[in-house]
Amino acid sequence: MADPEKTAKFSSVTIVGVGLIGSSLAHAMREAGLSERFIGYDHDGAAAKEAKALGVVDEIAADFASSIAGADLIVLATPVGAIESLCAALAQHVAAGTLIIDVGSTKGAIVEAASKLSDDVFFVPCHPVAGTEQSGPSAGFAKLFHDRWCIITPLARDDAPYKAAVARARSLWEGVGAHVEVMDAEHHDLALAVTSHLPHLIAFTLVGAADDLESVTEAEIVKYSAGGFRDFTRIAASDPVMWRDVFLKNREAVLEVLGRFTEELAVLQRAIRWGDDATLEKTFARGRSLRRAIVEAGQEMDAPNFGRDEERS
Amino acid sequence: MADPEKTAKFSSVTIVGVGLIGSSLAHAMREAGLSERFIGYDHDGAAAKEAKALGVVDEIAADFASSIAGADLIVLATPVGAIESLCAALAQHVAAGTLIIDVGSTKGAIVEAASKLSDDVFFVPCHPVAGTEQSGPSAGFAKLFHDRWCIITPLARDDAPYKAAVARARSLWEGVGAHVEVMDAEHHDLALAVTSHLPHLIAFTLVGAADDLESVTEAEIVKYSAGGFRDFTRIAASDPVMWRDVFLKNREAVLEVLGRFTEELAVLQRAIRWGDDATLEKTFARGRSLRRAIVEAGQEMDAPNFGRDEERS
Repeated sequence: MADPEKTAKFSSVTIVGVGLIGSSLAHAMREAGLSERFIGYDHDGAAAKEAKALGVVDEIAADFASSIAGADLIVLATPVGAIESLCAALAQHVAAGTLIIDVGSTKGAIVEAASKLSDDVFFVPCHPVAGTEQSGPSAGFAKLFHDRWCIITPLARDDAPYKAAVARARSLWEGVGAHVEVMDAEHHDLALAVTSHLPHLIAFTLVGAADDLESVTEAEIVKYSAGGFRDFTRIAASDPVMWRDVFLKNREAVLEVLGRFTEELAVLQRAIRWGDDATLEKTFARGRSLRRAIVEAGQEMDAPNFGRDEERS
Repeated sequence: MADPEKTAKFSSVTIVGVGLIGSSLAHAMREAGLSERFIGYDHDGAAAKEAKALGVVDEIAADFASSIAGADLIVLATPVGAIESLCAALAQHVAAGTLIIDVGSTKGAIVEAASKLSDDVFFVPCHPVAGTEQSGPSAGFAKLFHDRWCIITPLARDDAPYKAAVARARSLWEGVGAHVEVMDAEHHDLALAVTSHLPHLIAFTLVGAADDLESVTEAEIVKYSAGGFRDFTRIAASDPVMWRDVFLKNREAVLEVLGRFTEELAVLQRAIRWGDDATLEKTFARGRSLRRAIVEAGQEMDAPNFGRDEERS
């Protein structure tokens, strides 16, 4: 965990996009004492007002340019599709010396856009691997990042001020309870295609396919969802715009891992068709050890059934 | 809920297969006062001994024939692949008038096997749509069936004693807290292919595909699993033998709904490849309402992120 002496502190933080992640980071930074002043901006004015009413931010700004005036930290927490145009706006308005981070789920396109900024501002691309299926300012909470991993994919710069900015960004994430890993954007986009993007695509697909059946009613799907289906509806309830942008911005890596998935699915489909019991059992036996590893790494709850049975009377 | 006056009571219950479901039903029936005597049999002798040591059953039997001697209720709670041979053994050893239920996740093959029994025994095929990813006698607990649905797929018999047996089976499930629905086996197998079998197949496939990648390490998959992947590992940690049998016994329905799934996946794959943002957003937007319906029906927890964040410090 972070050394409090070394933790980055900021005089004024601008949160651009006051949704789940932006508002969680504001809560978490405030709770950790990393800043006392948070300015919010959101292209959805109602969300901005809600964030102020909830105390997520102290003030809201009418436009992007005024929101970042005086900020020493700018957090871009919009869907990734908006980052390019935000970078263009930053190029016009941002003050020299400012630290800028984003929180986007894809990094290649963001590194490319951020690399066009001048060298006297410091854009450090970040991806905190944390979230819930809920959206908006009211969904945010301070401990979202506790014991989760945040991946930093620095720009191709090795000047000392930029390295110091990367260190400040690391310290910020550690200050809100996250573990930090540094890697290049290309590897990030492949790793997250596996652990996040493909699972979301599959969940969206399964829920969509179920919705389309004529032979099984929605009432039946709801009733018998405890057979497994309900698990998939959690991530399929995530923000559609955010995820649309993820797939548009990480096309190559998603298509690559999707190819691997459909190959594996074809093998199992064939095993079912031909009654190949050995292939089925061997494949199915691989799940337990990986889940155990995830639980042991503190990335998943230990309770069976996600603890659902504990909350029932 | 069940009227206690009308709830079926049994003088001696034999549980064949003392795993998660068999031992949960023993616990639940005991707690509900439906019987005071439970005999256990399991082809895995160590599991049988464990069930006795845990108090799941009062006695264990050395073989199937002696386990069912004197029982007025026999519960077949083995993987579905074992049911045919158990029916053959029942034909030799079961006493006239006995009620037999199973708890299998597929029903067509079981109805077919059970229909070969003589008319003086009463086999009522049942499927309680409930479970966890854990296995074995120690995984069982009494409230597993509370507010879950149990589907009964009766044999093609309309004699009064059989109808009375179906009513007794219904009363038993209602007595342990379940809601009961009656339908034909073919429709059951299609509906559960959607809500249970396909989700398991997809989860097993995703975990298997991730395990096979060379470019992303297992350590990375574990670390970044909070991006969505970890959700799939729960059902992918389920019992491999049980699930092997489900796919072998429900081949046609699983292949049919898998076909629908791969069609839908191909549409999204194409939308990603060609940057078709409208198709992606429209498909992704369907998840929220279905999840809300499942939560409102009491089949899923309301807490975001399966309540994971509440258990973190």
